[in-house]
Amino acid sequence: MSDYIYPVARLIESFRRLPGVGSKSAARMAFGVLEMSEADAEEFRAAIKGVKEDVHRCSVCCDLCDGDKCAICSDPERDGGMICVVEDPRAVSALERSHEYNGTYHVLGGVISPMNGITPDKLNVKELIARLNGDVREVIIATNPNIEGETTAVYLSKLIRPLGVKVTRLAYGVPVGADLEFADSETLARALEGRREF
Amino acid sequence: MSDYIYPVARLIESFRRLPGVGSKSAARMAFGVLEMSEADAEEFRAAIKGVKEDVHRCSVCCDLCDGDKCAICSDPERDGGMICVVEDPRAVSALERSHEYNGTYHVLGGVISPMNGITPDKLNVKELIARLNGDVREVIIATNPNIEGETTAVYLSKLIRPLGVKVTRLAYGVPVGADLEFADSETLARALEGRREF
Repeated sequence: MSDYIYPVARLIESFRRLPGVGSKSAARMAFGVLEMSEADAEEFRAAIKGVKEDVHRCSVCCDLCDGDKCAICSDPERDGGMICVVEDPRAVSALERSHEYNGTYHVLGGVISPMNGITPDKLNVKELIARLNGDVREVIIATNPNIEGETTAVYLSKLIRPLGVKVTRLAYGVPVGADLEFADSETLARALEGRREF
Repeated sequence: MSDYIYPVARLIESFRRLPGVGSKSAARMAFGVLEMSEADAEEFRAAIKGVKEDVHRCSVCCDLCDGDKCAICSDPERDGGMICVVEDPRAVSALERSHEYNGTYHVLGGVISPMNGITPDKLNVKELIARLNGDVREVIIATNPNIEGETTAVYLSKLIRPLGVKVTRLAYGVPVGADLEFADSETLARALEGRREF
């Protein structure tokens, strides 16, 4: 990046530390900051400070929140008898957008991945087990549908079932709006296996 | 973006103000900041401040610089008799990477675009004309090869030629390493027109 003057090269470096940002998009964004108004740049800096200082983990579900408990755990309308276990806060947002679920969540903060040194004790598993008092009827495991997500799901189900709590898994199948032609064979096999009667 | 807690939603908004950033990549980057170390986040904030406070325009060529004159205009080894006119600082970086040019540059700060209200007086044209004293032998126009770049090139050549300075344009042709099959017909026509003897 030595083609750029120091202040620009330095900002490009900061952008490159973000996930999924290559050198070209980092440069494009750094020039974007250069062309921003002073007020927008100041707001950008304040927003970075804000996420580092004001974002905490919910003391119940480990999701991100800006207080002690997140909005979902604080909401008496939500069904505390159901816990949907997800990998990260983005999965909570995605599931909330479906408007299909009125229970609570539990954010693991990752998946079991021995290759990357992530063992169950590095995840928010004991916080999940601590929540399984008599009131919880069902735990829905919604880790991502890949090998590590599956491994984590199997691990959790083995841990939770003996406690007398029903453990379920999100359905596999063809995504709505997708073209069957482009669905991979594993997904199609799971979709056939999980077929339902009209 | 109301799915996210305020500090995160606010940072996503800041990322979305950058060119070429949609809501998904803004969210991915905001979560990236959340997972950054405190030191990296502080460095990111300092880098934003740095580009807003320390980056100026070179008093000669209008390129970005962190002093009064840019490194190229300050370099006695560069040939001041040649000026390559480009739209923006990124074009200077791209041309420098070719290691083919030893003259100086002039950054217009855009192209003529009446639709967007960009008339020649909004560009660094008078600064360019002011440089055309007796020492300048040639002005190479290297605006982008599109309609607005062409319009600007024609405008500048009409302005500069009467001053007795040679005006040239970057060659059009097929990009090195590209496959002819995928070159558009306009590019191929220009490549044929500009063919050279071995």
